[in-house]
Amino acid sequence: MSPKNAFYAQSGGVTSVINASACGVIETSRQHKDKIGTVFAGLNGIIGALSEELIDTALESDADIAALKNTPSGAFGSCRFKLKSLEENRREYERLIEVFKAHDIGYFFYNGGGDSADTCFKVSQLSESMGFPVQAIHIPKTVDNDLPITDNCPGFGSVAKYIAISALEASFDVSSMAKTSTKVFILEVMGRHAGWIAAAGGLIEDYGVPVLLLFPEVDFDHDKFIEAVKAKVDTHGYCTIVVSEGARNTDGSFLAEQGTRDAFGHAQLGGVAPVVANMIKDALGYKFHWAVADYLQRSARHIASANDLEQAYALGKAGVEMALAGDNAIMPTIERISDRPYRWQVGSAKLADVANVEKTMPLDFITEDGFGITDKCRDYLYPLIQGEAYPDYDERGMPRYIVLQNQLVDKKLGDFEL
Amino acid sequence: MSPKNAFYAQSGGVTSVINASACGVIETSRQHKDKIGTVFAGLNGIIGALSEELIDTALESDADIAALKNTPSGAFGSCRFKLKSLEENRREYERLIEVFKAHDIGYFFYNGGGDSADTCFKVSQLSESMGFPVQAIHIPKTVDNDLPITDNCPGFGSVAKYIAISALEASFDVSSMAKTSTKVFILEVMGRHAGWIAAAGGLIEDYGVPVLLLFPEVDFDHDKFIEAVKAKVDTHGYCTIVVSEGARNTDGSFLAEQGTRDAFGHAQLGGVAPVVANMIKDALGYKFHWAVADYLQRSARHIASANDLEQAYALGKAGVEMALAGDNAIMPTIERISDRPYRWQVGSAKLADVANVEKTMPLDFITEDGFGITDKCRDYLYPLIQGEAYPDYDERGMPRYIVLQNQLVDKKLGDFEL
Repeated sequence: MSPKNAFYAQSGGVTSVINASACGVIETSRQHKDKIGTVFAGLNGIIGALSEELIDTALESDADIAALKNTPSGAFGSCRFKLKSLEENRREYERLIEVFKAHDIGYFFYNGGGDSADTCFKVSQLSESMGFPVQAIHIPKTVDNDLPITDNCPGFGSVAKYIAISALEASFDVSSMAKTSTKVFILEVMGRHAGWIAAAGGLIEDYGVPVLLLFPEVDFDHDKFIEAVKAKVDTHGYCTIVVSEGARNTDGSFLAEQGTRDAFGHAQLGGVAPVVANMIKDALGYKFHWAVADYLQRSARHIASANDLEQAYALGKAGVEMALAGDNAIMPTIERISDRPYRWQVGSAKLADVANVEKTMPLDFITEDGFGITDKCRDYLYPLIQGEAYPDYDERGMPRYIVLQNQLVDKKLGDFEL
Repeated sequence: MSPKNAFYAQSGGVTSVINASACGVIETSRQHKDKIGTVFAGLNGIIGALSEELIDTALESDADIAALKNTPSGAFGSCRFKLKSLEENRREYERLIEVFKAHDIGYFFYNGGGDSADTCFKVSQLSESMGFPVQAIHIPKTVDNDLPITDNCPGFGSVAKYIAISALEASFDVSSMAKTSTKVFILEVMGRHAGWIAAAGGLIEDYGVPVLLLFPEVDFDHDKFIEAVKAKVDTHGYCTIVVSEGARNTDGSFLAEQGTRDAFGHAQLGGVAPVVANMIKDALGYKFHWAVADYLQRSARHIASANDLEQAYALGKAGVEMALAGDNAIMPTIERISDRPYRWQVGSAKLADVANVEKTMPLDFITEDGFGITDKCRDYLYPLIQGEAYPDYDERGMPRYIVLQNQLVDKKLGDFEL
């Protein structure tokens, strides 16, 4: 009996190290050719399975697969596409199993966040009941760091490092200019529901920078905030603010949505940084600058955390090893053994316990005033940003990022309407 | 006769390598103690001279001065303060000379852009006529790259590298997401009058990325732009746009100023990126993301260009050597000898020829459609971003940036009202 093939897909927002997990999956599979045939990757994530657009990763050289470790974003394409519940749309799940059957796929490696853990779980349940068992393994990935059980999520450490360094560098800049010019710098970071990324901005306090953080977990209090900004500027001459895109008012509305309009009265889609900047200008009159890091933060492979990169690879590898050991409906996790020195090992969690659970910042990670992080949070964060995993650069001064061939295998089934 | 002291000041917006020029000035001065006494640095730039707040750099260790090479921003503080013309405010120039006299300062090293070259020139003229000759040397620095005569300006190469890498990384991200989500990514970069920084974003076309640039040098044509965006998305599935903050309409108004209002009808201070994003959404309905790099781009010492760093140091050093050779009212420049391999040497320009001249992008650096860069521009840009000059990192994963003691010398004069 020839070994079963594997299907791997990237899901949701990509990260600077998700390709390292792909590399871990593919390289480890290649080491077990007796057990795993070809690794097919979904073109644009799970959509590639539904539409039977399967990339044949066997056509990529070992060197090109290894280069994935140094390349940000999703090399096979990702997607924002959540399968509905089984009750609502059994059709999609059945199509997945049909495609898996047609291509003799016995392993399903799904690389994503909370939603994809849920999908992965359902696939394992359904495949069983449909008489074509598929081992479904979820490889965690999310810059939001909001998956439960695992100590942290691959992708987060590199964003945290990028934000901490960027906030530090920009603060040095503001500090230089504050005498006659900019006194407040506002950096908007990702995190719609959880403040993990903003928390990383809090590390720069250890480097002498006056910084205030705005978390989604803490209701925004305008007067208290303005008072805090004034106190920092009075004492230090300037202030840096790191604000989560998900920062919200007491009534639950996003600060970013507080009614900016264009000249025609249309709601303006903007960031929260300019809203906070204008608030400070109105109340205190300080000169300000603001930045919105957006995709730059989650694609910044050039300053990825070495620990994060190592973990992303390790969990891809562990996923395959778990599959080989017969596991199913499971997710490899990171278990922290100690903070200093940082030591960790791979653990595992049942997908039933992971799916649809969101981990926000623990209350004891946030200072009492709501604008900073505690020592406990610092101890948690620093290990995740340790080490610099630089990519190679070409002779022109640009990083060597790989673009794979991504050749599709021939379809065996009819079309499927998404 | 004891040697004259020197005065060094940083002016205007800081860069990730301006401290390397400071390092070049101070280290070279320390090697010539027979000719140069103490290097005083202005606290917060030229304001430090006017208010007689002089930092005694002799109190800093050799190691700390060397660490300036790896530290972004202005270590002594900078300022946005342009001395008025001699006719309008002779008082300020006379005060400068008075302070120079009081502290026996015979060398004036001014590290800045176009405005400071002008100030530097006037100081040299006035000091002569006031009977206390000061050798005034301008050390060029500007991320805007808009000084004349010199082939390029220290500070620009590192911003260019940061923007090219960031735009490439974010484009890889968008490319991953484009199937079901973001199709257009807009990156706003600095450059109010000149498009040099936006031009660096154009380099990513060599790496397969569909990119459009919006320069201050090219009048914005809404319909032509929308058409170009659509063509890129139709062909490649996505499009990256790099827009100068100074992009402007045919009537000369900034795109960024086109009338966004808050809920109360107040003019909203925002960036040009969201304006362009909304324009595309209105016309084409594409999902978009946008980022505003702001201070992150000019403080990103973590990914500085090695060539830029070397040149920043070299021009600081050359400034001192020119002073020792008896030069006055002069600026060291970078002369390009060849593109491939990149070779350059230090030249010089008379300040009379530098002051108040602004170098925008040559027309033959911009493609005919106005949205891209030509091969000539590529040949110009690549050498400037070559080499990675990484700073050291501490054990916690953060860069080792130095904060100097910045101790002031005792004042000898009365107060001066700024």
